[in-house]
Amino acid sequence: MKKFKIVILLFLSSLVFTSCGGDVPKTGAGISNKTQITGKIDNDNYRSVIQHGHYLTSKTRGLTNNQDQNNLDVKSFESGLLDISKKQFSIKKYIFQEGQYISSAKAQDWLERKSHKNPEGLNPSDKKSPIYLQSIEEQDYMKQSGKKLKLSGMTIGLSLNSVYYYDKGKSGTQESENISDQDLINQGENIANKVIKRVRQIKGVSDNLPIVIALYKQSSEDSLVGGTFVKFTVNKGGSIINWHNVNERNEILPSIGGDNSNNDHSTISRDFDDFKNQVQNFFPNLSGVVAQVHYTNDNLSGMNITITTQFYSETEIISFTQYIAQIAPKYLPGGVPINITVQSTNGIQSFLSRKQNQTKFYSHVFTSY
Amino acid sequence: MKKFKIVILLFLSSLVFTSCGGDVPKTGAGISNKTQITGKIDNDNYRSVIQHGHYLTSKTRGLTNNQDQNNLDVKSFESGLLDISKKQFSIKKYIFQEGQYISSAKAQDWLERKSHKNPEGLNPSDKKSPIYLQSIEEQDYMKQSGKKLKLSGMTIGLSLNSVYYYDKGKSGTQESENISDQDLINQGENIANKVIKRVRQIKGVSDNLPIVIALYKQSSEDSLVGGTFVKFTVNKGGSIINWHNVNERNEILPSIGGDNSNNDHSTISRDFDDFKNQVQNFFPNLSGVVAQVHYTNDNLSGMNITITTQFYSETEIISFTQYIAQIAPKYLPGGVPINITVQSTNGIQSFLSRKQNQTKFYSHVFTSY
Repeated sequence: MKKFKIVILLFLSSLVFTSCGGDVPKTGAGISNKTQITGKIDNDNYRSVIQHGHYLTSKTRGLTNNQDQNNLDVKSFESGLLDISKKQFSIKKYIFQEGQYISSAKAQDWLERKSHKNPEGLNPSDKKSPIYLQSIEEQDYMKQSGKKLKLSGMTIGLSLNSVYYYDKGKSGTQESENISDQDLINQGENIANKVIKRVRQIKGVSDNLPIVIALYKQSSEDSLVGGTFVKFTVNKGGSIINWHNVNERNEILPSIGGDNSNNDHSTISRDFDDFKNQVQNFFPNLSGVVAQVHYTNDNLSGMNITITTQFYSETEIISFTQYIAQIAPKYLPGGVPINITVQSTNGIQSFLSRKQNQTKFYSHVFTSY
Repeated sequence: MKKFKIVILLFLSSLVFTSCGGDVPKTGAGISNKTQITGKIDNDNYRSVIQHGHYLTSKTRGLTNNQDQNNLDVKSFESGLLDISKKQFSIKKYIFQEGQYISSAKAQDWLERKSHKNPEGLNPSDKKSPIYLQSIEEQDYMKQSGKKLKLSGMTIGLSLNSVYYYDKGKSGTQESENISDQDLINQGENIANKVIKRVRQIKGVSDNLPIVIALYKQSSEDSLVGGTFVKFTVNKGGSIINWHNVNERNEILPSIGGDNSNNDHSTISRDFDDFKNQVQNFFPNLSGVVAQVHYTNDNLSGMNITITTQFYSETEIISFTQYIAQIAPKYLPGGVPINITVQSTNGIQSFLSRKQNQTKFYSHVFTSY
């Protein structure tokens, strides 16, 4: 039962410091000798905390239930949780700190099934019931108070399985069971109520600290796109009173159905197909063109396009990238962030990116000396 | 003997057009219905030729002698050849076209050993002698003339082996033999003289077309950095009269020797070590930090830094990237282009880049929905 994926944690024991551990980087705003803050890249990201010269990593870093997980979910869960946090805890006022309050031991117990040995388990004691809770992520939001950083907000993400995978009997073949949205939400809300009560017991967390809890619905193991958030609440003490719906959806283009007549987003799909055809027309061989498309409140809110090509001659990649930079603004929707990655079997070859408010694509071709 | 690496060419036969082959993209400056030019990304790259809606690929695309080759050489050879061309054929006046004059059949014959069956072979007939010529790259430089593009310059790169790899007897174990610089240059110059005479015989290449020939010295199979150009000449007819030296060098940092006291570039090496220590100090686990460093005329002219980390939590990568953007300008040399790639076993995580004249680093964190 204790087979948690703590492979990553093993690296923690192989500490290799090339300079003195107490060495404070000469960068970042110094709050005290002990604590520094990384500067901002831009207005899109939080500043974060460096302590004793090192980044303050999360206590529950890399920890999940041992059920297999789609790698895409890990990224999508974390960046989605940041987006939800940004609406409650302004980038300008708060400093991001990786979760320091829920200990690794606690999180491990919580992620397991409830049992006599483990009364704290948040997954059902009945072994026939699905594992609902796959991982917990804590994010701390700090404000400067004199020479210290003070915990001023917290976000907790609960990542929930939409499919339960289990081994059947002794044969070891994997079986799966879909979890309905309603079941997932009911269970998630129950777990959230328990979590918030427990977290408020932890030393350093006050009774009225604003805590955001968000429920994430994981994708299936073989999905080409991660899951989405379904609910969140802001708790300032006491029980959770009301949940807000999160209306998010991820899609893959080109759509597998082919017939888009019933698709609300047929314009986006058609524009993407035009772009894809132009791209595939460029070289005399096939390039794979696939997009992850993200919708928020039924509006397009972002696109990640991956172009896979067998060729990687430097001059071809340069010309291809120029060409994409030229046609992308014509065919792809405006007003949303779009990233385009060109890759071959040798890895990433070039990359184009346009932020929400920009009209031109930034582009870069990866070279080697 | 005909075991050329033409795997890539096989893809040419799997033509997949999703729209009509004669479809002309509605983008790019139209020279005629038949010919288009891709627009520029910036002032660093040539525009290039699209014909009948497709990129005009090189006739000798992907063709090399069958001796094993370091993949880094392929990129380094092509981008170095472009840099040499840019000095002779201005980006503003010329349009780049992939080589169209040396046919694939010709190039195959030239890359083989000379024999009764193949009198055109440019590698020694004596099977005990090394294979010197590994690959040939032709680049065409065009000017607009009415509704046509006219060949107005050509660059030919000869990629030469610095190590000859061969199988010894029936045991099949690979043996190697170093080729001295003097030997490589002598052979390269001889080959160049033959190539230029042959190319001027090809229909469409005039007797006085400016042709740049450049000699590239390949790295060894296991090198972490590609080779460099050693000589070039500009021929405007007749025999090659004088060769210009190219003073280029590639290095890997951190230097393996450890003792940099005899190193001309000890300052760069020390600054890089400081940067590396700061980077490795950030996370409680080791990050690999390696740089390809390029020198031109004994001056630093560019750096590609690769940081490999085991972790890839989204928030960690964001903070790490912020941190690198902050310390890079302090520790890394100014006035030269620098690219920094952060990667994990899951591929590229983030990327930072600063062009020659910039002070700030552009940065991007790769995300997923």
